[in-house]
Amino acid sequence: MGFSDDLARAVQQKRSPLVVGIDPRWDQLPEALREGGDGLAERAAAFREFSLGVIGAVEPHAAAIKPQVAFFEELGPHGMTALGDVIAAARAAGLPVIVDGKRNDIGSTAEAYARGWLGRGSAWGGDALTVSPYLGDDSLDPFVEVATDRGAGLFVLVKTSNPGGALWQDRVADGQTLYQSIGAHVQSLAVASLDECGYGAVGAVVGATYPRQLAELRELMPHVWFLIPGYGSQGGTAADVAAGFAADGLGAVVNSSRGVIFAYQRSEYVDRAASGHWTDCVAAAAADAVADLRRHTPAGRL
Amino acid sequence: MGFSDDLARAVQQKRSPLVVGIDPRWDQLPEALREGGDGLAERAAAFREFSLGVIGAVEPHAAAIKPQVAFFEELGPHGMTALGDVIAAARAAGLPVIVDGKRNDIGSTAEAYARGWLGRGSAWGGDALTVSPYLGDDSLDPFVEVATDRGAGLFVLVKTSNPGGALWQDRVADGQTLYQSIGAHVQSLAVASLDECGYGAVGAVVGATYPRQLAELRELMPHVWFLIPGYGSQGGTAADVAAGFAADGLGAVVNSSRGVIFAYQRSEYVDRAASGHWTDCVAAAAADAVADLRRHTPAGRL
Repeated sequence: MGFSDDLARAVQQKRSPLVVGIDPRWDQLPEALREGGDGLAERAAAFREFSLGVIGAVEPHAAAIKPQVAFFEELGPHGMTALGDVIAAARAAGLPVIVDGKRNDIGSTAEAYARGWLGRGSAWGGDALTVSPYLGDDSLDPFVEVATDRGAGLFVLVKTSNPGGALWQDRVADGQTLYQSIGAHVQSLAVASLDECGYGAVGAVVGATYPRQLAELRELMPHVWFLIPGYGSQGGTAADVAAGFAADGLGAVVNSSRGVIFAYQRSEYVDRAASGHWTDCVAAAAADAVADLRRHTPAGRL
Repeated sequence: MGFSDDLARAVQQKRSPLVVGIDPRWDQLPEALREGGDGLAERAAAFREFSLGVIGAVEPHAAAIKPQVAFFEELGPHGMTALGDVIAAARAAGLPVIVDGKRNDIGSTAEAYARGWLGRGSAWGGDALTVSPYLGDDSLDPFVEVATDRGAGLFVLVKTSNPGGALWQDRVADGQTLYQSIGAHVQSLAVASLDECGYGAVGAVVGATYPRQLAELRELMPHVWFLIPGYGSQGGTAADVAAGFAADGLGAVVNSSRGVIFAYQRSEYVDRAASGHWTDCVAAAAADAVADLRRHTPAGRL
């Protein structure tokens, strides 16, 4: 059993396609966590505490978590040490960890990234990693080999959620957009790494902000897990992401970061949180996101 | 004065377009450095010692160094701590540091990567960073803003050195390959960030293994520094990279990693090293690479 089956099981057991993105930002942390000072070491300690609080709060609701490496990396070695603790804590809580690193390189360098994040006895211990395809199909192979060898997963950037993503991803050659060509390649990698759930170890990142393309890619890539960013704060709605799911409610997980992890900044959650503790707001926002996704997408059939 | 001028000055002062890639690989380290054991902490300590030895040996010959993040990242937080030390040591030795991370993301996440590696008071303190363009032009903007604000630089992947790079980079739409479209965009970013030397803060990665495209891109991108990988171990020769230079010998820096840093594995260098110490072999290989590049490229006019 590999990552694909693990993800399917988590989605089915929790009846939730929600991935919570762990994107700590110093200025938005609860005040109590910022009292230790704002040097790199202190910020990293606060990021760690914040992330562990989020993990505890969302564990009943989220199918997986997705730490964003950039925010930890910004803090230097202290931040990376905190990230290691966050990944370990999520796994100890039984949550699959999708490392959002958008890594990419060629040959043995790609292999080093893959081994570090996903390999047997890997230093970081992630369950899946986001990767960028610009360097070509042979740059993806080392990631696929290392990931499938350990039963880990990948999500290849196909159609991203930002407005400028279209500039190069939508270029048409031989009647196909670039994202369609890459999508077709990802489908072939998924077919070659199928788990029992019917999806492969190699997934795709497809943004919530392009609902038409989401539907088109769902058809082109029937064996591919979609990781869908752009729901919530970036403007994508549950109706927008509906087309990313297969009819049985599987095939897609939907990321929400700011909308969940900073819920204590919104009065609707502060008013509802009995204890007044920030983690209660985060838990309530995660539960709301799951209910929203169940109501408006095939995830309701889970 | 920004990164572009710093690089031009380093190239002119040393009459060298050589960038030495710091890509430590455990199995290839000198035996003396592997005696401390092979746990993650011990490997990271060995990578640090090895890299510092390389920096000392190549400092008279190299215009810049390029640590490959992947090999340090593979070792987890210990590796990242070692990388921080390596960057600091290179800067202390007066060598510009091109961080080879091929990072990419959108919006404030891209900004976090840029701030961490390149920003004012950045945790890592790099001088330039390699970035991947798949996410679109707006994904490059935060990197450009942060870099130019501090006088740091970028190298955007345009035409990579691996065989599979052609699959998507060479797709033709509206009469232009994808790499030409991205190259033209990079040229516009360079023009908007020109230093006194006539080149901008935004450079391009163009592989040595495609000499024809190197010549074509040199014409398309007259204000862009090229960082050329693929010379040496990957099969590119000094003659192959010649077309990447402007007539005055500027405009390109050429990376060599394995061919220089593991020179102590080649009998030609072991026989020549008077002391028998591995760093003497590394220094001799760096000097040879510079001589080769001077002989066969416009760098000889420096």
